[in-house]
Amino acid sequence: MERTEIADIGEFGLIDHLASPNETKNAGTLVSIGDDAAVIDHFGKQTVVSTDMLLEGVHFDLMYTPLKHLGYKSVAVNLSDIYAMNATPTHITVAIGVTNRFSVEALDEFYEGVYAACEKYNVDLVGGDTCTSLKGFVISITAIGEVNTDQFVTRSGARKSDLICVSGNLGAAYLGLQLLEREKKIFLESPSVQPDLQQKSYIVGRILKPEPRADIVDWLHENSIMPTSMIDISDGLSSELLHICKQSKVGCVLYEDKIPVHDETKEMSLEFNLDPTSCALSGGEDYELLFTISQTDYERVAHHKDLSVIGYITDWEEGAVLESRQGKKHLLTAQGWNAFR
Amino acid sequence: MERTEIADIGEFGLIDHLASPNETKNAGTLVSIGDDAAVIDHFGKQTVVSTDMLLEGVHFDLMYTPLKHLGYKSVAVNLSDIYAMNATPTHITVAIGVTNRFSVEALDEFYEGVYAACEKYNVDLVGGDTCTSLKGFVISITAIGEVNTDQFVTRSGARKSDLICVSGNLGAAYLGLQLLEREKKIFLESPSVQPDLQQKSYIVGRILKPEPRADIVDWLHENSIMPTSMIDISDGLSSELLHICKQSKVGCVLYEDKIPVHDETKEMSLEFNLDPTSCALSGGEDYELLFTISQTDYERVAHHKDLSVIGYITDWEEGAVLESRQGKKHLLTAQGWNAFR
Repeated sequence: MERTEIADIGEFGLIDHLASPNETKNAGTLVSIGDDAAVIDHFGKQTVVSTDMLLEGVHFDLMYTPLKHLGYKSVAVNLSDIYAMNATPTHITVAIGVTNRFSVEALDEFYEGVYAACEKYNVDLVGGDTCTSLKGFVISITAIGEVNTDQFVTRSGARKSDLICVSGNLGAAYLGLQLLEREKKIFLESPSVQPDLQQKSYIVGRILKPEPRADIVDWLHENSIMPTSMIDISDGLSSELLHICKQSKVGCVLYEDKIPVHDETKEMSLEFNLDPTSCALSGGEDYELLFTISQTDYERVAHHKDLSVIGYITDWEEGAVLESRQGKKHLLTAQGWNAFR
Repeated sequence: MERTEIADIGEFGLIDHLASPNETKNAGTLVSIGDDAAVIDHFGKQTVVSTDMLLEGVHFDLMYTPLKHLGYKSVAVNLSDIYAMNATPTHITVAIGVTNRFSVEALDEFYEGVYAACEKYNVDLVGGDTCTSLKGFVISITAIGEVNTDQFVTRSGARKSDLICVSGNLGAAYLGLQLLEREKKIFLESPSVQPDLQQKSYIVGRILKPEPRADIVDWLHENSIMPTSMIDISDGLSSELLHICKQSKVGCVLYEDKIPVHDETKEMSLEFNLDPTSCALSGGEDYELLFTISQTDYERVAHHKDLSVIGYITDWEEGAVLESRQGKKHLLTAQGWNAFR
């Protein structure tokens, strides 16, 4: 029998492959597999649904991830997918698998984080599943949201000459992770050396406690700006922008000098001998919003202190291009994360 | 720091404990944690949501579970929770974690089963997550359904003198599992002996490919019978009936001789030296529907060939009682499954 390794087709290849026999049977299914979330037309208004799974040793390391933060983050990353549809999350379900090394008190800490995120984002935890796991802590969360009729924003609506915008700054979470991994290694070698992460609280906070950009979605709504496409940055700017280009069948020009990077991220990337732009392009886990707008919305977006216009959309034939500080053009590639390698 | 073992409070105790700080913030949240599924009022009509997690080595053994069956069953058990709310499933999301021992072809088989169940129950797969797992196959499915306004049925509406009904027959899946476990043991000891399961295809089918009782929900609907309470049987009749009693604050009398048990189940239980009634009470994984109806609906239910009236509801003070064939009364206990022991 034939055997194709998952690593050979990659995560996105695998999703495409597995989704290929999928046929939509219900007329109410407006957006299915292949976007940040699905959109279901329920009785005239629209429901948005997204699921994420987090596995110990793959997505998180309990050695440096406090359980409360983990609970908070598990919810946050799911809500981020709902916001990325221009929708408002309303409900979540949480399924967990735990080994018997977990005490009830440990789970309480995890759920404290879950409830804190629910509280902050006004979301109800309405169900879930609790089961025993033979190895590792397993978390699966589904978020449900709502959006006004036809106000949802997919990855496929970007048009030529639209402007590319991003919220916040990029690459910080990746460097926070590098720092935690380094401190873990030092600690394992010499347990008496306690890491001092106070000086790097920004980047550490970005990896341990990301916040979905509800504020940006609210602001867009208040200002009647409807992005032409939108996605949240979980795998890195390159990878997400390529998703928008592929699904919208467009090209893009991205200006290196416009990509927002926090000072602490820059400092830390120098310390690690990494290029800050590469960290922003391929780092991932920023959970910022990447979206495109019509040029007529430029003025208002340009004045928002936490939004950056970082490029524009071109024809598909022109490809996805990064223009460096020196004015050189590079083809954008998704070096991103291939979880199966 | 205090340490409470999860095993000390049990699965249901754990769920109660973790859910206790949960506060409902959205007026649209009609049913939250503690039923087969949550009910959300979305714009006047109602959405039903349920999540289940299945872990290799805990919920299934790939040695005797074909991947296609596993895919089918993973969907079926989730749909069963939606039907148990008197609702119709419409959409699912599927999140999986796989190790690199899985090939793309193996996942194709799993998804063949997923799609087959979607096809049969007219449900759309609308999203999910695919990630790498360090150990074991992890499956988490969320099902979403819809129900006409205020037609959903919870576990808490049973009233004194209501009749207790169950669909199909009970205990078969449990004996199918015992058989597969025995054949696995024989095979591991002498690999040349191939098991012959043809003679036991009914009970093996019940554990490997359960079908949610969509037909019963449809029939109830067509006959305008609205159960007063309903639950699906995943942990065994005792455990589920005690859920109804506890949440409805009622007692019950269950007649041993009325509990439907298939002939193959009876034969097999004798072969294993097990009491068929105990298998029906505590076996689990039947995915039949257990519900209560008003006495006025008795005639129609009694004539349905695949429904059995097995007892009636009493006052809370009278407790949950099993009346044996010999007319002896026993207190019903949930010996069921404590996954954490």
